Amino acid sequence: MKNTNNLGARAIALHKKYQGKLKTASKIPLRNMQDLSLIYTPGVGLVSSLIAKNKKLTRDLTFKGNSVAVVSDGSAVLGLGNIGPEAALAVMEGKAVIFKEFADIDAVPIVLNTQDQEKIIEIVKAISPTFGGINLEDFSAPRCFEIENRLKKELDIPVMHDDQHGTAIVTLAALINAAKVVKKKLTELKVVISGAGPAGVAVAKLLLNAGIKNIIIVDSKGIISAKRPDLLPYKKELVKITNPKKLSGDFVKAIENADVFIGLSRPNVFFASDIKKMAKSAIVFAMANPIPEIMPDVAKAAGAAVVATGRSDFPNQINNSLAFPGVFRGALDNQVRQITDKMKMKAAYALAELIKKPSAQKIIPSIFDKRVVKIVAKSIK
Amino acid sequence: MKNTNNLGARAIALHKKYQGKLKTASKIPLRNMQDLSLIYTPGVGLVSSLIAKNKKLTRDLTFKGNSVAVVSDGSAVLGLGNIGPEAALAVMEGKAVIFKEFADIDAVPIVLNTQDQEKIIEIVKAISPTFGGINLEDFSAPRCFEIENRLKKELDIPVMHDDQHGTAIVTLAALINAAKVVKKKLTELKVVISGAGPAGVAVAKLLLNAGIKNIIIVDSKGIISAKRPDLLPYKKELVKITNPKKLSGDFVKAIENADVFIGLSRPNVFFASDIKKMAKSAIVFAMANPIPEIMPDVAKAAGAAVVATGRSDFPNQINNSLAFPGVFRGALDNQVRQITDKMKMKAAYALAELIKKPSAQKIIPSIFDKRVVKIVAKSIK
Repeated sequence: MKNTNNLGARAIALHKKYQGKLKTASKIPLRNMQDLSLIYTPGVGLVSSLIAKNKKLTRDLTFKGNSVAVVSDGSAVLGLGNIGPEAALAVMEGKAVIFKEFADIDAVPIVLNTQDQEKIIEIVKAISPTFGGINLEDFSAPRCFEIENRLKKELDIPVMHDDQHGTAIVTLAALINAAKVVKKKLTELKVVISGAGPAGVAVAKLLLNAGIKNIIIVDSKGIISAKRPDLLPYKKELVKITNPKKLSGDFVKAIENADVFIGLSRPNVFFASDIKKMAKSAIVFAMANPIPEIMPDVAKAAGAAVVATGRSDFPNQINNSLAFPGVFRGALDNQVRQITDKMKMKAAYALAELIKKPSAQKIIPSIFDKRVVKIVAKSIK
Repeated sequence: MKNTNNLGARAIALHKKYQGKLKTASKIPLRNMQDLSLIYTPGVGLVSSLIAKNKKLTRDLTFKGNSVAVVSDGSAVLGLGNIGPEAALAVMEGKAVIFKEFADIDAVPIVLNTQDQEKIIEIVKAISPTFGGINLEDFSAPRCFEIENRLKKELDIPVMHDDQHGTAIVTLAALINAAKVVKKKLTELKVVISGAGPAGVAVAKLLLNAGIKNIIIVDSKGIISAKRPDLLPYKKELVKITNPKKLSGDFVKAIENADVFIGLSRPNVFFASDIKKMAKSAIVFAMANPIPEIMPDVAKAAGAAVVATGRSDFPNQINNSLAFPGVFRGALDNQVRQITDKMKMKAAYALAELIKKPSAQKIIPSIFDKRVVKIVAKSIK
């Protein structure tokens, strides 16, 4: 990546200068004993007594009502893998800053030094009275599915694994507009997803929900199909809902005549020769970060009609930051307990609609577009 | 308490208006894609990679270096008892605000919906990579002792149960100056402590460390002595280190000829008739909150020479806020792993020395005295 070293040096210097990125502050002035007697003893005692009688007041009278925990065990951080909780903290803190700056949510990074599924579930449940929502982040598959499902069932606050659903919302939004650009019907697209991790699975499921029928998922060993003897249980589930033509074999077999390539896998695994096998007016979303499955200029030169990546230095950045701040803003404001597929779909369509005239260069809004958080938040209710 | 209802109504209105007290904020401006690429991907990836190689850098490059978790299970909140995590959150949030405003520490309230000792230890250990220190708060005895001891042993960051040690530091500081006021030698004082909870135990231990030999602890059933068949294990330990004259019986027996009464128990359990039984120039610290063991005017009228309470509306407020912000400021700045008895003692003497000429009306500095945090922090190294 161009300037990566320079960018890295600047990022490290900035983090060192400020000793990280997140700080706390008081919402109420604390100037004298009078102020202190209201925010701490004895005044706070009456606030606590009131909450003890009616727990529902916690949201109105404490930090809980506007707070989200950004929880990670550091098992699948960015493209860096299992780098542990300390290294993950820098990412979670960045996410907390994005929550604050884009959606005015008081988010707190919490990194865990266990990667045991049951312990993680127990810990998140134990700390949950503190927060109005739980954003799970960078948990590896397959634990991430069970952790999210269990917490969704067992907690009374919204829980979302952003690597899954944030990615899915923004990808669907981009695909809705990309289909318009190439004048194809969304539901009739043949879509190949490279990567059967959390993002690949969630994108496939949301696209299915949006009515797309022909989705093929490919992992490092080939097409996810009934013929594969090596599939983990969660991948076996995918066999039931994807690959309707029952293809088997390698990636090249899948990509033949596909309308859409969605890369949620690894750098440099998609080639000009693959694009040439796709249907005409191919849509290519190469979202591995920071180095995509194929560089946009190469994809364009090979004939792709619409190209998107996860990067800010190319057009059409498909970035989770378009989704998660608004999703939790809406969930907190509307006291939503579960973020449903219907809400995610609504959010994706709302995001897509922000682009009045989609073009190959512009299928998705900028995350600095002030309308984004509001319109996503409105979908979550 | 005068104006309690009015104060309560104002406290509740203020908490409602601001939806609690604590917020987060970004330390680094987030204005455009360039800023975002430094604090989040791809820039943060290089920060994470660096930390993955050397965990010690976590303190320099993330929020951890200046952060403290204020953890409670809501089992012994203020004088309100076992009111649970939601109600405790208001208090922990207030404490986080005090950490910020007095010591510029980014403290995060974490309330737990379990009161199981082993689970609490496991949870705090699991979240510990996030924080530079752990302030335990409002855990009931006897679990609080084991929880603190185990976490101190098993974690590489400082852990302090403030109800114990914050109280002990400030009480010793006040007693050092009170002894000067009544011209008695600190180490020769006969001290009666009412209350064998976390605060009573920790105060007794720190006073012993300061060289005071004759300390008698009384709980609701009388003097803690070898003759008591009902003692919990932690109270049996107290028999070995307190009550050197082996007194047994009720509170009245203990208070005879005592120089000092330290109330860490319940409202209105200490009377003018008790003070009349004490030695002359009696020192009375009535610290039950918000209603003390005896009201200061009653204590004075009965002949007490120096009177202190936990309240801000009387002279000589013995308040933990004089200790905990500075203790953790020092611990974070000096990367202290364990807050030792020696450090606590130094902090108490440093606090006492801020009052150049102690008088009956002034034995302890105000928590708004800007020197307090600095001088306490200097003692923790």
